[in-house]
Amino acid sequence: MMKKKKVNAAILIIGNEILSGRTQDKNISFISNWLNLKCGIAVSEVRIIPDVEKIIVKNIRLLSKEFDYVFTTGGIGPTHDDITAISIAKAFKIKYGYHKEAYKILEKYYGKEKFNDGRKKMAKMPVSAKLIFNPSSAAPGFVTKNVLSLPGVPSILNSMIENCKKYLVKGLKIHSKTINLFTVESNISKQLEIIQKKYKTFVNIGSYPFFRLGKIGVSIVSRSTSKKQLTYVHKEIIKFIKYKKIKILNI
Amino acid sequence: MMKKKKVNAAILIIGNEILSGRTQDKNISFISNWLNLKCGIAVSEVRIIPDVEKIIVKNIRLLSKEFDYVFTTGGIGPTHDDITAISIAKAFKIKYGYHKEAYKILEKYYGKEKFNDGRKKMAKMPVSAKLIFNPSSAAPGFVTKNVLSLPGVPSILNSMIENCKKYLVKGLKIHSKTINLFTVESNISKQLEIIQKKYKTFVNIGSYPFFRLGKIGVSIVSRSTSKKQLTYVHKEIIKFIKYKKIKILNI
Repeated sequence: MMKKKKVNAAILIIGNEILSGRTQDKNISFISNWLNLKCGIAVSEVRIIPDVEKIIVKNIRLLSKEFDYVFTTGGIGPTHDDITAISIAKAFKIKYGYHKEAYKILEKYYGKEKFNDGRKKMAKMPVSAKLIFNPSSAAPGFVTKNVLSLPGVPSILNSMIENCKKYLVKGLKIHSKTINLFTVESNISKQLEIIQKKYKTFVNIGSYPFFRLGKIGVSIVSRSTSKKQLTYVHKEIIKFIKYKKIKILNI
Repeated sequence: MMKKKKVNAAILIIGNEILSGRTQDKNISFISNWLNLKCGIAVSEVRIIPDVEKIIVKNIRLLSKEFDYVFTTGGIGPTHDDITAISIAKAFKIKYGYHKEAYKILEKYYGKEKFNDGRKKMAKMPVSAKLIFNPSSAAPGFVTKNVLSLPGVPSILNSMIENCKKYLVKGLKIHSKTINLFTVESNISKQLEIIQKKYKTFVNIGSYPFFRLGKIGVSIVSRSTSKKQLTYVHKEIIKFIKYKKIKILNI
């Protein structure tokens, strides 16, 4: 597998139920974590859009140009509002119709007599797409150019994610270290800024407040593709925290 | 208050911690639900972007043109990676600096001697912005043209959301009354539920925990289209809180 220095991706969540607030999305953090940890691919943008063809088409065109990969979730089921496949075909001006291999998989899964029109619809996609095997419910995901399309149901998506790997060029692994402490951000912001500026080329430092048992805390997260640089920065942060006599919860 | 037929909004989540998958976003569904149910405003698009100034600027310009309102979350704290305020000022070419009112609020909250540079940073924003009151941790949100900026920590955001209402054009006016108190929700949940059930046809009661100076508090928000019913329920809530001898912070 070829190694590239930095590989990025966008996630496009397609679904009114997420936009309305009715459903809490769980796929963004799952896909991001998986891409980060398993593939060294950084998610650079996420969009959530409604089930509207022209909006999907526009976003597919834009994001597939701007990023190395685009992951879509949702809209590949059997109902009238599942329009991801046809929209992607239109975005790339590729023929949309029954995908031979997908058709076979679904026909075998349901059996000929139970393979009705709704189910057949799940075999319709850009005809030249490559398939992403679905061990849960058979209906495959698909890859169209640099766009990987997955279902919206988290448990099904999760069971398919490993099968995306063969379509991805891996990037450099992104390492991270976290320090949790009970303090307020303003107590450490000055020193953190100094360290961040000093190492901005190699390490990215983030500061995230949290609440635990009624107390205020901060997670300091450092990320880098260089393990050595990361360890160095990590130690420097610990040094100033100890100097300030702030109690470190865990590292 | 003017009535508009269709009002829409976009949500712009600013933060590397959401993109990396480290943090599971909870603000999208919360804001969407609130806008939908309480304001008749439909969220039409959501974007999650990194803490990078030029990307924030670009998205603010785009989304503020395309939608009636833009809600941003994240990046308004005291640390080096909090760059939402300056990015919005740049997007609209508005002067960025100390906001007089915000400065006063924060100086009063922390006390002059503890009002350090990190904390002062939270008073820096587009100088002409209108403020969104923060009952949890004082640092206000702000409104710049049609862009409403809120913090990323869900519990703080949740405690502030009602204070966005006065800046929004919506459908039928929903009146609300808020009671802030230091207590845990479980201490008041039973009585609140009884009152809610009794008046469920006319009044909606919400309970939102917050943290202030390391203490746990709750904002009880009652909402109704009937001012009369609301006042009645509000008095009933105050009655049981006083009976339970819980200190009311403000109403």
